[in-house]
Amino acid sequence: MTTAAAFPAPVYRDTVLGPLFENMKRHHWRHLMRVNDAHAVMLAEQGLLTADEAAAILNALEAIETDVASRLDEVGVGSAEEDLFCVIEDDLRRRLGIAVAGRLHTGRSRNDIDHTLFNLALRDKVLALSEALVHLIDGVIAVATRHRDTLVVAYTHGQPAQPTTWGHYLAALIEVLLRDVDRLSQALRMVDQSAMGAAAITTTGFPIDRPRMAELLGFTKVQENTYGCIAAADGTTGVYAALKVMFLNIGRFVQDLNQWAGFEVGQLHVPDTFVQRSSIMPQKRNPVPIEHLRVMCSLGVSCCDGVMLAVHNTPFTDVNDTEHEAQETGYRAFDTAGRVVALLNGFLEVATINTAVVRRHIDQSYITITEVADSLVRAEGISFGQAHSICSWLARHMGEQGETLATVPYAVFAAAFAAAVDRPPGLAEAEFRRIGTPEHFIAVRTHCGGPAPAPMDRSLAGYRDQVEIDRARLADHHRRIEAAAVKLADRVAHWQRTARK
Amino acid sequence: MTTAAAFPAPVYRDTVLGPLFENMKRHHWRHLMRVNDAHAVMLAEQGLLTADEAAAILNALEAIETDVASRLDEVGVGSAEEDLFCVIEDDLRRRLGIAVAGRLHTGRSRNDIDHTLFNLALRDKVLALSEALVHLIDGVIAVATRHRDTLVVAYTHGQPAQPTTWGHYLAALIEVLLRDVDRLSQALRMVDQSAMGAAAITTTGFPIDRPRMAELLGFTKVQENTYGCIAAADGTTGVYAALKVMFLNIGRFVQDLNQWAGFEVGQLHVPDTFVQRSSIMPQKRNPVPIEHLRVMCSLGVSCCDGVMLAVHNTPFTDVNDTEHEAQETGYRAFDTAGRVVALLNGFLEVATINTAVVRRHIDQSYITITEVADSLVRAEGISFGQAHSICSWLARHMGEQGETLATVPYAVFAAAFAAAVDRPPGLAEAEFRRIGTPEHFIAVRTHCGGPAPAPMDRSLAGYRDQVEIDRARLADHHRRIEAAAVKLADRVAHWQRTARK
Amino acid sequence: MTTAAAFPAPVYRDTVLGPLFENMKRHHWRHLMRVNDAHAVMLAEQGLLTADEAAAILNALEAIETDVASRLDEVGVGSAEEDLFCVIEDDLRRRLGIAVAGRLHTGRSRNDIDHTLFNLALRDKVLALSEALVHLIDGVIAVATRHRDTLVVAYTHGQPAQPTTWGHYLAALIEVLLRDVDRLSQALRMVDQSAMGAAAITTTGFPIDRPRMAELLGFTKVQENTYGCIAAADGTTGVYAALKVMFLNIGRFVQDLNQWAGFEVGQLHVPDTFVQRSSIMPQKRNPVPIEHLRVMCSLGVSCCDGVMLAVHNTPFTDVNDTEHEAQETGYRAFDTAGRVVALLNGFLEVATINTAVVRRHIDQSYITITEVADSLVRAEGISFGQAHSICSWLARHMGEQGETLATVPYAVFAAAFAAAVDRPPGLAEAEFRRIGTPEHFIAVRTHCGGPAPAPMDRSLAGYRDQVEIDRARLADHHRRIEAAAVKLADRVAHWQRTARK
Amino acid sequence: MTTAAAFPAPVYRDTVLGPLFENMKRHHWRHLMRVNDAHAVMLAEQGLLTADEAAAILNALEAIETDVASRLDEVGVGSAEEDLFCVIEDDLRRRLGIAVAGRLHTGRSRNDIDHTLFNLALRDKVLALSEALVHLIDGVIAVATRHRDTLVVAYTHGQPAQPTTWGHYLAALIEVLLRDVDRLSQALRMVDQSAMGAAAITTTGFPIDRPRMAELLGFTKVQENTYGCIAAADGTTGVYAALKVMFLNIGRFVQDLNQWAGFEVGQLHVPDTFVQRSSIMPQKRNPVPIEHLRVMCSLGVSCCDGVMLAVHNTPFTDVNDTEHEAQETGYRAFDTAGRVVALLNGFLEVATINTAVVRRHIDQSYITITEVADSLVRAEGISFGQAHSICSWLARHMGEQGETLATVPYAVFAAAFAAAVDRPPGLAEAEFRRIGTPEHFIAVRTHCGGPAPAPMDRSLAGYRDQVEIDRARLADHHRRIEAAAVKLADRVAHWQRTARK
Repeated sequence: MTTAAAFPAPVYRDTVLGPLFENMKRHHWRHLMRVNDAHAVMLAEQGLLTADEAAAILNALEAIETDVASRLDEVGVGSAEEDLFCVIEDDLRRRLGIAVAGRLHTGRSRNDIDHTLFNLALRDKVLALSEALVHLIDGVIAVATRHRDTLVVAYTHGQPAQPTTWGHYLAALIEVLLRDVDRLSQALRMVDQSAMGAAAITTTGFPIDRPRMAELLGFTKVQENTYGCIAAADGTTGVYAALKVMFLNIGRFVQDLNQWAGFEVGQLHVPDTFVQRSSIMPQKRNPVPIEHLRVMCSLGVSCCDGVMLAVHNTPFTDVNDTEHEAQETGYRAFDTAGRVVALLNGFLEVATINTAVVRRHIDQSYITITEVADSLVRAEGISFGQAHSICSWLARHMGEQGETLATVPYAVFAAAFAAAVDRPPGLAEAEFRRIGTPEHFIAVRTHCGGPAPAPMDRSLAGYRDQVEIDRARLADHHRRIEAAAVKLADRVAHWQRTARK
Repeated sequence: MTTAAAFPAPVYRDTVLGPLFENMKRHHWRHLMRVNDAHAVMLAEQGLLTADEAAAILNALEAIETDVASRLDEVGVGSAEEDLFCVIEDDLRRRLGIAVAGRLHTGRSRNDIDHTLFNLALRDKVLALSEALVHLIDGVIAVATRHRDTLVVAYTHGQPAQPTTWGHYLAALIEVLLRDVDRLSQALRMVDQSAMGAAAITTTGFPIDRPRMAELLGFTKVQENTYGCIAAADGTTGVYAALKVMFLNIGRFVQDLNQWAGFEVGQLHVPDTFVQRSSIMPQKRNPVPIEHLRVMCSLGVSCCDGVMLAVHNTPFTDVNDTEHEAQETGYRAFDTAGRVVALLNGFLEVATINTAVVRRHIDQSYITITEVADSLVRAEGISFGQAHSICSWLARHMGEQGETLATVPYAVFAAAFAAAVDRPPGLAEAEFRRIGTPEHFIAVRTHCGGPAPAPMDRSLAGYRDQVEIDRARLADHHRRIEAAAVKLADRVAHWQRTARK
Repeated sequence: MTTAAAFPAPVYRDTVLGPLFENMKRHHWRHLMRVNDAHAVMLAEQGLLTADEAAAILNALEAIETDVASRLDEVGVGSAEEDLFCVIEDDLRRRLGIAVAGRLHTGRSRNDIDHTLFNLALRDKVLALSEALVHLIDGVIAVATRHRDTLVVAYTHGQPAQPTTWGHYLAALIEVLLRDVDRLSQALRMVDQSAMGAAAITTTGFPIDRPRMAELLGFTKVQENTYGCIAAADGTTGVYAALKVMFLNIGRFVQDLNQWAGFEVGQLHVPDTFVQRSSIMPQKRNPVPIEHLRVMCSLGVSCCDGVMLAVHNTPFTDVNDTEHEAQETGYRAFDTAGRVVALLNGFLEVATINTAVVRRHIDQSYITITEVADSLVRAEGISFGQAHSICSWLARHMGEQGETLATVPYAVFAAAFAAAVDRPPGLAEAEFRRIGTPEHFIAVRTHCGGPAPAPMDRSLAGYRDQVEIDRARLADHHRRIEAAAVKLADRVAHWQRTARK
Repeated sequence: MTTAAAFPAPVYRDTVLGPLFENMKRHHWRHLMRVNDAHAVMLAEQGLLTADEAAAILNALEAIETDVASRLDEVGVGSAEEDLFCVIEDDLRRRLGIAVAGRLHTGRSRNDIDHTLFNLALRDKVLALSEALVHLIDGVIAVATRHRDTLVVAYTHGQPAQPTTWGHYLAALIEVLLRDVDRLSQALRMVDQSAMGAAAITTTGFPIDRPRMAELLGFTKVQENTYGCIAAADGTTGVYAALKVMFLNIGRFVQDLNQWAGFEVGQLHVPDTFVQRSSIMPQKRNPVPIEHLRVMCSLGVSCCDGVMLAVHNTPFTDVNDTEHEAQETGYRAFDTAGRVVALLNGFLEVATINTAVVRRHIDQSYITITEVADSLVRAEGISFGQAHSICSWLARHMGEQGETLATVPYAVFAAAFAAAVDRPPGLAEAEFRRIGTPEHFIAVRTHCGGPAPAPMDRSLAGYRDQVEIDRARLADHHRRIEAAAVKLADRVAHWQRTARK
């Protein structure tokens, strides 16, 4: 830089170009090399590069990639180049001269390249997170299967409400997570598209081949309107909208774990590998990974919102607000998501239900009593009003006397029954005790989506099927992407060899 | 209320129950009556109500509905009832006695009812907004078709970049809006499910019929896991995540309109019906509907975020945070969305492109010059380096002399050409002028998604097809919902008549 | 409206002007009349209105105000008037003719009037909320004073950590709320300023008197730069930033209440007036007002964020994004805040600590054990390492045996002591028991801000002083505003009478 | 780690402890060493450490600090230590034995230490940003002073509204930024407080000295209630609330710069050092630093919101959600703020107003015409109605004929005047021309806060005074902090030397 007045001003280099350069190195530069390869191959196929030019360019690109990879730490914002894109382009010019090197940029622009890079990065990240989620779901299905019959207290409004099973509870989580995978998959459709060929905005007058670029980069399709290709950020915001919903979902489940692991509730036992102790309070067991999961979900949400805020009230034209710095904020959300899913998976593998505590709390809160009433209706042929009147009286009595449905004298029940129905109950004591147990409570709940063994088995089988479907879908993506990579490498090698002898 | 200690405390009634009551009246009470009808019919079909009971209940419900409808303004938080649900239940008890009236609540709970009501309301709102969007898209397609060839300046980074057409620009908007419809449609799948039968959490021991309830309420399916039915708010947050993306999209487009309508840019003419004038500044034309669209989109986003914030860090159990007050915040987002879509539609119908201004700005910014360079490469067989060198020189000359590509002397071009290529150009002046026109610029951009007539016609045809597909899908929804309503009314009438004679 | 092409387009009227008109009627119109009065008085004082003109205008304004007040429901968006401002101006013109009526608008504009109205409304709302907060703090101080010595379990990471008192815990809340009042007070400084005289942007050439307008409207000062008067929204966003912090604060406290009121924790007893019962689960007590407080705080946050989002990425010039619709979103936040503060106040007045439960949980979690170790260090002159070794051993023993510090045999302690220190403890059993009690734990914590009676009394006295200071400050505001209103009414009456006879 | 079951689980170490360790190294470890020093000094002064113990501990701490500093890159999550705090504590134990080393932790806890570290870090960051803002304001004052009389077009609703000066416009920015400094200063008050002595929650039974700790760490005061010390995050959220307002403010100003730098508006000239060019479009000048400022402000907002979201709906007790990971998100906001302020400062130093363009747009939009009307009222003694009628007619004429107030024939004006007033104007042509100039427009706007030279000079003088006041306040902070550091170092050295010989 010979004059003070040349671009960039030092403050701009330090506050913007430098950070963006590092971002490019971290996230995009290998993809950029593939875009360069694919574009060169396509231009050669279309006759827009001669065989000699194609060979020269592709060989030089390979050499540059090797070189940059070997000294990536040293590459940075220098005096002349704005960013890594320019570093590569300048190197190409030095190696081949402008006349040949310049032909690589035929029918393309920084605009379509950048948005293609963002789509490639987002595709990788959505697929990786989807796989981690499917792996997590698989793990949760295994726990739910093992604990299909393990009782837990189900809460509403923070209060014990009914007994259910750890399996049934986890099935709710499984369904939510399967829907998260579904939402991510829908969002992926809208970024798994090639912007190449849009050039700056409006395509080009050169006979390029947009579908071929999509194919060589493993995209499912060409993104059609070319202004949209370089300006519509809704593919990106759609991904982060879906990801935000996932963070909110996991955060809520984590709040349950937090309640359950509390000293007094104690329904969930967290093993020592996940408990931080207090040096000052030797009795204290802090299951802080739960809190870390919670705050990671919160910060994940805020990164998703950050991407969306970045585009808020910006013009719908190509603007930097949708680009590198905002995209990197989004990548941070994916990094956090990866940590969350891994930690939750590890945690759920080893956390256990404290069955003695569960049993005690079920007894103390007599949360099976609604089923006692319902069973009386069915067994005794009495009306709801009568059954509820009996059970309300019983509940009050147990509360006052500290009794449970296992200990309250049968005579008390019989008297309450007689008072309400004017005859003694048909139910013998053994049957009365049975209809008050959580096992009975669960056993009669055989409707679709309920906690009894039969519907649970059907549900779990369905989840396993869905996991297989999702796995197959993800594998298809990988196969397609891998096949494209192989084809691209093959075409690169072809043209590298094809210079006129 | 006879004692000070009875529920509810006055401050609770005033700050919570009162507002919720009004909310219920505004948004949910008709749906509640349909849920009551469907539940009674299902119970009767399952033998859980006798024919007499079913007739009594269904006739009483009809009378209550008529009565409530006639004095809706007067109904409110009284001394005894928490909310409209209780008002109706109490009325039913007064009419039929607890023994019969109480049977309606067999195998259900406030929990599954509430979440069913939210799903019914959201379904209505998503469908109505989707229809409004499809109507808007249809209108935009019509404008884009009429203005397929109307030139506009396309901007990047706020600066004139290339010419394109109003049609091509609008096509970008059309694609974004079609994806918004798609996102809403995906989100709808996850709320168009019946929670009925989940009861409080775990279903019930009574032989209810969950699929029948889904059918009578016109849902596409039963939501499976029943803890999820009453606790997983992700269906709801998924809808608002999609809606937020829509607001962000429209807001960005509106920022373009704002720039284009500025006095100096002047590309967009806003007719008087949308212009507020200043009493103090007679010369001033304020196209403030654009600003109102922008701020409505912002406030719409904040309502969507409000729903999502309401569930953030709440436990994943049945909690009020996912319910009435949060849902109403969401309904406000839909109300705003309806206003935005209607206003944007009305605005785009009458706003026009100021073609003289567009032409002047294209000339002054010579944004066709990249095509001149590209055309020289193709026409003269020269290299990119040479073409760009010629055009950069021309651009500098025009900037200094205030010339345009229409006025710069051909000799100047010829001299620049000769200096770079060492021979005179083959291009005659007429051809030189032609390749600098925006018409030529557009005409050669014939790739998929580009602005030339042929790809535009293909794109527009594709959009029309997609609109038809979306319309058909929405019509299917309505048909299904309407058919369910007819069937439900029929079954209600059947049981109303079926009391044992 | 004679032609279809006249302003406003029906869709604009329905989607924008109509809602804004209602907003104006709800929030601003009385203030607008005062601004009119003050402006007319100031113009008369400056000789910009003759006495006759001033009398005519002020008398007409009074008549208009009476008239509008009497039929406010009927006034709405008509064919000609954009909003209530225009309705009043048109009425004035009809009554006085344009020549006189038009003079009222000398040296002012819709811009400075609107921002003055927003400041007046915000001032009212900040003051009202501050008073409600001070009232709440006063109530919390009273509870904390009564319960200075009532034990509670203090939690960290959701686990019992140490005993403290209800008073000490509430003192933390009191300090937070006092800081909220402080934050609101700082934010108020920046909106308690008069924008009048800014006119459209740059003041006016007429000899108006900006300080006089500030005085007549009861503002503390003139807002200086006039572009800022009509464009800088930071006074408004500053208020909502402070209010958001308050919602977050209260929401966190509410989460503690929620945990404390859980069935198993049971530290907080919620009386029946605040408990909703389940019709289906007779045993269940749902303290749902806590959940409603939580979700109201969340939605309050989202309204605050809505105002801030509305101005995000808008130009810093006069724009509608900072105006009526965004302001109304903010007013909703204040409405919610009022409900939250009232409900929390009512709730805390009657909620009680379940002292038996607290005692049991302290015993079971032996959370006083760190003080046992500390006391041993001081009483026995042993090292920390030794004391912690003794206490860790004790804690493990108690955990295994289900003992507490009140029941663990003294001999066990003595043996542990001897094992660590090689001599028997000096502490007799009574003293050993005493240092394990929560009463001892509290009593020795006499540092500033600690829970012992002495520092608590000092803290409470300090809070009472601060409440008095805040009350005095708020009273000063009211006195100043009331004095200005009296002076304005007096000057209005003066000029109404001063027409030349 | 010999057994798989030991803390921490590998997944917890990788997803949580590892990142937190790096965070600690980046942001807190030097402050931690100062807290250790101060605590040891205070303990020695209180007789809680003997002179020998104090010397041993302080010398060991010094050695550890040197050691850690020399190999900071290598220090990380190992097998045993959770974090850097434990690394240091373990090292101390290895050096001195547990008996002595353990005494350093007397009367303190990780809880009060952590919150003290956060306050120290936030204090540094708020002060540094405040200084950068004051520096920026100083720079803007200089530009505003130089350009007190440089005309610009002032916009409302995106349309030219009135002429004003670059100085007057910048004065609006200056006032906003001064209020930002004020808001940060108010927020700082609430974190510039010492939490030390709170220990885990409730202070300690040992005779520590809380005020002395505050003094040695340079805090202005002790934070009183000790539960609040370790739980109330409102000091932190208050800082980010203020910072968010600053980002929103700067972002809006940046939107104006963006509009002004547009090709057609062209009011602002951005020099080449801040312009990125398009390789494909040689004519294009993209002032993208403006966009980068905009998106940095957006992402800064989202980091502020992230901190606030992290605490949302967490319990008000000590929780990890308010701690390291959330705090680091906040530090990112400060980092972004530093970049924004530096870049804006550098940009405004060199950006210039394109005076020829301004003049042309003023003429073309005749935005001085309201002053013409006002001047006629004063000069000719006619009514407003008459003046406006004349000017509206003139405006329409100029619009139709493409005239300006400098070129419209005087006769046209005279005829319009006569038509309205029934006599010729008293104003000669020269005077008519003069009252239509922007210079006249500015000159008559002499009210407080207006653009005329006199009020501008008064405003600028006031801003300079305020800058001096802010500078003095910031210098006071630094003096106090520096004095505390010197005193602490002195006391450390004293005790290091004071071991009993």
